[in-house]
Amino acid sequence: MKELKVFKIQKNIHEDNTKVANETRKFLKQQDTYLINVMSSPGSGKTSTLVSIIKALKDKIQIGVIEADIESDVDARTIQKTGAKVVQMNTEGLCHLDATMARTGIDQLEVSDLDLVFLENIGNLICPVGYDTGAMKNMAILSVPEGDDKPLKYPKIFGKVELLVINKIDVIEHFDFDMGLLEERVRKLNKDIKIIPISAKTGEGVAALTDWMMDTLIRR
Amino acid sequence: MKELKVFKIQKNIHEDNTKVANETRKFLKQQDTYLINVMSSPGSGKTSTLVSIIKALKDKIQIGVIEADIESDVDARTIQKTGAKVVQMNTEGLCHLDATMARTGIDQLEVSDLDLVFLENIGNLICPVGYDTGAMKNMAILSVPEGDDKPLKYPKIFGKVELLVINKIDVIEHFDFDMGLLEERVRKLNKDIKIIPISAKTGEGVAALTDWMMDTLIRR
Repeated sequence: MKELKVFKIQKNIHEDNTKVANETRKFLKQQDTYLINVMSSPGSGKTSTLVSIIKALKDKIQIGVIEADIESDVDARTIQKTGAKVVQMNTEGLCHLDATMARTGIDQLEVSDLDLVFLENIGNLICPVGYDTGAMKNMAILSVPEGDDKPLKYPKIFGKVELLVINKIDVIEHFDFDMGLLEERVRKLNKDIKIIPISAKTGEGVAALTDWMMDTLIRR
Repeated sequence: MKELKVFKIQKNIHEDNTKVANETRKFLKQQDTYLINVMSSPGSGKTSTLVSIIKALKDKIQIGVIEADIESDVDARTIQKTGAKVVQMNTEGLCHLDATMARTGIDQLEVSDLDLVFLENIGNLICPVGYDTGAMKNMAILSVPEGDDKPLKYPKIFGKVELLVINKIDVIEHFDFDMGLLEERVRKLNKDIKIIPISAKTGEGVAALTDWMMDTLIRR
């Protein structure tokens, strides 16, 4: 009986979360601001991918970033160097952002002058998946060194996102990473997903990624 | 090949985690079995590091592995090929193991004939840190591609573990990874930590790691 009660509480939390997330989307549409939730493992290159997008698009559109980390402001300082508007949130141990936390970040950032905002979620493939943040699109980054078996072990995140960026393709020859097999495993979970291989370090593939961003903004 | 055990577990919120963990340690001491809890990000090489340890030590001691994943039995099948005793646990979304879950794995594995058991925790740097599993030692793996800034962003795990393995050093020349800086950042959090750089792929450094394991077993 106790377990059933816990389940109901969890369900209610998620229902409230969806309500807040829907309010956020409504607010962002009024502001003409598009929000993308970015998820990945630690060290897969969320921040460096965002830096490469900002550098490519900063003369075309206004971009902002909400950085979420357990601790530190390392990532926000990296983003700041690009000139993009940025705020840092520390969750102090929590492994995901919910809609209320995301909304706090949006309000802190002040988005009225921004076309595109990235919400850089906490670095892991598990906790952030269950929470609608209020974003219009969800994007995951998998880096080559993490391995092509990750869709087998973390299917939920690959099933949820509209865009999957495969980062660090500049080092693919040094790893046992089969891009064809990875795509096959991902498409079994999510047949309509867009997959874009890039190297945030060398810039390879970043044009395809920014084309997708601009196309998505135009079609919104 | 022996049939692989896969079972599902759910968190028992009503147990006192530390009490269960202490009972596990007492039980394992009676069995003369040493338990090491292994934590890391997804794809840092937990399983391949364990495979390299098992291959080096299997003629000296009896080793077993408890594999924990959100879903799939990919890792347990990899371990099984070494001939080591293994069980797979699926947490179905939960991002850590607590002492009750770990004990379930220990009981499923049947440890009475084992000298050393590795508990391969769920792949992330956040959730597993707060839960005593009943292990005698805690070990983390950080791989070179994840970056040398991880102690700044995930200080708790680096502060907790007795052993830090730096994996994938065979590719260090392809990444901006400063081993000296990493060590400095880690020692600020944990001055007595043992740090061992290895490549599970090439075998470099694995002897230092297995020496540490054997020394730890002798000193227990």
